Amino acid sequence: MSVLRIVKIGGQVVEDAPALGAFLRDFAGLDGHNILVHGGGKWVTEMSARLGIPVNMVQGRRITDAASLEVVKMMLAGVANKNIVSILQSLGCNAIGLTGADGGTIQAARRPPRNGIDYGLVGDVTRVDAGSIQRLLEGGFLPVFTALTHDGSGQLLNTNADTIASSLAVGMATMYETRLYYCFEKQGVLLDLGDEQSIVHHIDRGVYRKLHGEGRLQGGILPKIDNAFAALEAGVSQVWIGMASEMKAVASGDRYCGTTITL
Amino acid sequence: MSVLRIVKIGGQVVEDAPALGAFLRDFAGLDGHNILVHGGGKWVTEMSARLGIPVNMVQGRRITDAASLEVVKMMLAGVANKNIVSILQSLGCNAIGLTGADGGTIQAARRPPRNGIDYGLVGDVTRVDAGSIQRLLEGGFLPVFTALTHDGSGQLLNTNADTIASSLAVGMATMYETRLYYCFEKQGVLLDLGDEQSIVHHIDRGVYRKLHGEGRLQGGILPKIDNAFAALEAGVSQVWIGMASEMKAVASGDRYCGTTITL
Repeated sequence: MSVLRIVKIGGQVVEDAPALGAFLRDFAGLDGHNILVHGGGKWVTEMSARLGIPVNMVQGRRITDAASLEVVKMMLAGVANKNIVSILQSLGCNAIGLTGADGGTIQAARRPPRNGIDYGLVGDVTRVDAGSIQRLLEGGFLPVFTALTHDGSGQLLNTNADTIASSLAVGMATMYETRLYYCFEKQGVLLDLGDEQSIVHHIDRGVYRKLHGEGRLQGGILPKIDNAFAALEAGVSQVWIGMASEMKAVASGDRYCGTTITL
Repeated sequence: MSVLRIVKIGGQVVEDAPALGAFLRDFAGLDGHNILVHGGGKWVTEMSARLGIPVNMVQGRRITDAASLEVVKMMLAGVANKNIVSILQSLGCNAIGLTGADGGTIQAARRPPRNGIDYGLVGDVTRVDAGSIQRLLEGGFLPVFTALTHDGSGQLLNTNADTIASSLAVGMATMYETRLYYCFEKQGVLLDLGDEQSIVHHIDRGVYRKLHGEGRLQGGILPKIDNAFAALEAGVSQVWIGMASEMKAVASGDRYCGTTITL
């Protein structure tokens, strides 16, 4: 099977024009089949503030009401996605911007209320149309997904970009050897957040059990690692977590840095 | 050659949820290959007002400055396009939303200042990538374009949706028999705007010369008719102008209404 890379970049890269430009130059230089997934949450927060739309938080979780969903469409599907596509096109990369509604690529179900919290217009992925995505890839297009899905009944839903990336990697795993790259603002999984030297380069189940058992994995990274294992168990070949500026070297096999997670 | 319909709907339909729903049900029922092109200018105007972005007019023409272009991205590529795509998906129609940047489908050049007017970030179409669009159509996707193009150097540009529609019809004419449908709020070309009975059902060059010579074509419709003839001369097989609610009957050959323009 040929390799398909699913690369996820976070909002901090998307919202910083020079960093985004540098990252997209790297990304456009990758060979083979690739998919980009991006967030852009700070832009959503800023535009919500400009429009006087209150950020609705319940027990620390953001609720996506109808007005917030409009802002997600505006800033992610509108501004961020189209900026990224037009930059990639200028780099000779035939990008095509997508939400999960486009081409029926990613369907989701509205999340039912849990523990008394109604998350609003948030979708949990139920189906990736691997055939549609493969036709785009084989047709010479490079899909650029943002954090929106649809329920198949005309409703768009907000879905976390990390989840979109792992759902794509799992959904495409019967057709390609899929590798998932999470680019964020740290060198990788750190045992001490203040010390970039404390990176763990490779995590498998044994390493995870040991580190987690000793309480050495910091809070924010745990869900990412749990998601990584879930993706690996569902057929993804490897998951990488590291800095956007190092993704290309790692993906091209030129250099090793960051954290790779395997079963 | 098989038929490809390019159907353009104006902002008034896009912004009216029941009218949009009815139109999209009709559109989703068309057989064969189809492309939808939509505007949504009122939403752009309203959001510009909410954000305090002044509408910049010079000699009666709207100028697209950088802030206005962001609003076009937000409301057309973000809200309007994704709403339409998700509704079409719910109707069993495999819609994929596009700007001209997506898939490199429509390239444009920034309009040079004319008669001392700098239109800003407005693009005149220079190239339609018919191969890209054909791969989408043959791959089972139904392209839904909005009023944005790109210059190939990373800059998105605002391009009138009527122009996008005619450029697509011309650009695809070597591969398909292309038919262009402009849906607007009138029955068709009227000789008396107050009288829907004054419709002209068929216009060719002879009819046009006569009516125009007699001063019987009202101001607003003239550019549409001129654009129609330009498209026909460039290879489009027919251009229809009429009400959104009558498009399907006409396109399916069930009934005749509206105005058809041929050479």
